[in-house]
Amino acid sequence: MSDHHVVVVGGGFGGLQLVNGLKGAGVKITLVDRRNHHLFQPLLYQVATTILSTSEIAWPIRRLYADRPDVTVLLGEVTGVDSVAKTVSLRNGMTLRYDTLVLATGATHAYFGHDEWEPVAPGLKTLEDATTIRRRVLLAFEKAEMEADPAVRDALLTFTIVGAGPTGVELAGIIAELAHFTLPKEFRNIDTRKTRVVLVEAGPRVLPTFAEELSAYAQKALEKLGVEIHLGQPVTECNADGVKIGETFVPSRTIVWAAGVTASPAARWLGVAADRAGRVVVEKHLSAPGLPDVFVVGDTASVMREDGKPVPGIAPAAKQQGGYVAKVIRARISGKPAPAPFRYWHQGSLATIGKSAAIIDFGRIKLKGWIAWWIWGLAHIYFLIGTRSRFSVAWSWLWIYLSGQHSARLITQKETMREEG
Amino acid sequence: MSDHHVVVVGGGFGGLQLVNGLKGAGVKITLVDRRNHHLFQPLLYQVATTILSTSEIAWPIRRLYADRPDVTVLLGEVTGVDSVAKTVSLRNGMTLRYDTLVLATGATHAYFGHDEWEPVAPGLKTLEDATTIRRRVLLAFEKAEMEADPAVRDALLTFTIVGAGPTGVELAGIIAELAHFTLPKEFRNIDTRKTRVVLVEAGPRVLPTFAEELSAYAQKALEKLGVEIHLGQPVTECNADGVKIGETFVPSRTIVWAAGVTASPAARWLGVAADRAGRVVVEKHLSAPGLPDVFVVGDTASVMREDGKPVPGIAPAAKQQGGYVAKVIRARISGKPAPAPFRYWHQGSLATIGKSAAIIDFGRIKLKGWIAWWIWGLAHIYFLIGTRSRFSVAWSWLWIYLSGQHSARLITQKETMREEG
Repeated sequence: MSDHHVVVVGGGFGGLQLVNGLKGAGVKITLVDRRNHHLFQPLLYQVATTILSTSEIAWPIRRLYADRPDVTVLLGEVTGVDSVAKTVSLRNGMTLRYDTLVLATGATHAYFGHDEWEPVAPGLKTLEDATTIRRRVLLAFEKAEMEADPAVRDALLTFTIVGAGPTGVELAGIIAELAHFTLPKEFRNIDTRKTRVVLVEAGPRVLPTFAEELSAYAQKALEKLGVEIHLGQPVTECNADGVKIGETFVPSRTIVWAAGVTASPAARWLGVAADRAGRVVVEKHLSAPGLPDVFVVGDTASVMREDGKPVPGIAPAAKQQGGYVAKVIRARISGKPAPAPFRYWHQGSLATIGKSAAIIDFGRIKLKGWIAWWIWGLAHIYFLIGTRSRFSVAWSWLWIYLSGQHSARLITQKETMREEG
Repeated sequence: MSDHHVVVVGGGFGGLQLVNGLKGAGVKITLVDRRNHHLFQPLLYQVATTILSTSEIAWPIRRLYADRPDVTVLLGEVTGVDSVAKTVSLRNGMTLRYDTLVLATGATHAYFGHDEWEPVAPGLKTLEDATTIRRRVLLAFEKAEMEADPAVRDALLTFTIVGAGPTGVELAGIIAELAHFTLPKEFRNIDTRKTRVVLVEAGPRVLPTFAEELSAYAQKALEKLGVEIHLGQPVTECNADGVKIGETFVPSRTIVWAAGVTASPAARWLGVAADRAGRVVVEKHLSAPGLPDVFVVGDTASVMREDGKPVPGIAPAAKQQGGYVAKVIRARISGKPAPAPFRYWHQGSLATIGKSAAIIDFGRIKLKGWIAWWIWGLAHIYFLIGTRSRFSVAWSWLWIYLSGQHSARLITQKETMREEG
């Protein structure tokens, strides 16, 4: 093994693909993440909506590399990078020296200058976000059951999702199903079928990155589930009582933010140029501008497609970039010429609406309805890590399909009733 | 349906058995719990030790009574009882009027006058307790992997369990297995096989409520797993650095409290006599002294066996009491004579040590080894609620048995590294 030390920050899709791609390359790898687990983010909304439990979509990172003695995994938070001394500092005071650094640190929600909305309108990026949303959704029904004031009860039974991208659409669909099909028999004082699920989108249609016909289909499918859709109007205020959509105030005690993301502070750590969303504008081999030993991949990198559009912030894009950078590093250390510049290959876009409709946009081929739902389900099971998770998620879905019962409906966190008022 | 209103506080084993026993009795039932879920406490230690995930051993209470229109479930915290006005007050300001009240509010850990130990030595009663212990155990290994000081590293790799009843023995066995068999290949800087698991018991033997030969067998099985056992010495100090056992200080960054419980404040709410552990000394029909309309069951009731020993604080005892009180209530409202005084039937005591040894004490029949383990496992699967959980837990155990891999190894909770220092 050479002495070449590759430090990888972030154990998401990009980081893991990179580490996988360096197997047998003869380098020493240190993988740092703030969390001890890799998270399968595409299914995170199902944890938030009581379908899956946390351990079904997250795996301890060090478990994944138990058989790779070349890989050391550290649980730590990066606080800065010194690209001259070639070191990474961690919050616990540790310093890691690197020969090659790969930043795969992802993105977080953005509130477009309204960070004060975060406490009332949580986003969905981590397992904790998912359990927070799950808790709020379930507590809203619990409180409504005990509420004597009809206006407050209605506000408790109004759920607003801001942003109609795939996450917003998926959340709205499942919350509507939960309220209309799963819960009605369990409450005595409220009729959960009267729940309002409000989906707000500033743009002109739901799922704006999909073909128009698929957007229209998704909108119809959502409306069939009882979701109330507001298009072309931005949210102008979020507070504990509700949201303002354009000029109209909608009393709503539960708000979920699915409207925008901003990149991790990687550009700031490096002191390099970033785009409007804070992403590092990388060079053709995905290295940071002027720093050939530092690569940036995934949601924190700004990469353009050949048609001039940005590469989307989705798992397959991060994986392609991680795999590509592994090739660049292998070429360098073996003294071979660098591979051709990175080119993104778009495999398709998928989204689901509730438990029997989905849309898939492969470009020329477009699918919708239950066949799209089955392809979506099989693809997601295929991409999970390990036999155990595949089996477990497939079983959870089958159970819900047959019984209509969601199994992960626990409110956990101390002092919930008190803290929430 | 009569107007008779039964208020049940607590959705544990006793409370649920009572509600089940009142099916078709023609009374109106309100079941109040601080949590939205019933918890299968006998397997809680497996959540704390990364074997099971939270949703495998907990179920939303209102789901269980979806098909019982006579049962209303409320998520709320009781703050007091007025046994003259016959009302129960909840923290949210609600007041419930009862005709019959059943308190099944359980117990919590007791630190024998050292409540200041709680932050460093958490007990194991709720799902949050279990995820706290899981997080601390996993974080100790993570921190040890990054620790340069050998003394601190050793303290991080020393886990102390206070109390060698079933919970303490079960925790010690699994933590030892985790360290010695599951984790070694995943760390590069530490050898997790050098982990010390210290089990401290003030009494003269482990599992003091079992027959002596079974205690001896359990002790041998624990020692085979590498557990260090200290008997006959109380813990005299717990702090962030370790524990003092008698006069000896053992540096240990992770401590779990499994040494004692105290009853819920039911006796205080009622203003009636309690025993030393705070339990209501109930009358022969399990009603509170002088309050024939108020029953107390489970861990918060003090009931004696015919041989003068106390009824143990275990699930079967709570269930028997809940079922018995249902019969007393049914007899009363139908004007029949009260059933014979409550008599506890001890079905046996069970405990496991790691993943292949267990002991069962049926009184005359005593079992140990893998046959006891299989009976233990089947019994616990049988007592879980619902097909889905039975299947899921059986599958988790089978998976661990075949692969040696624990699947629920997630550290969740915000800012873990920072908060823990």
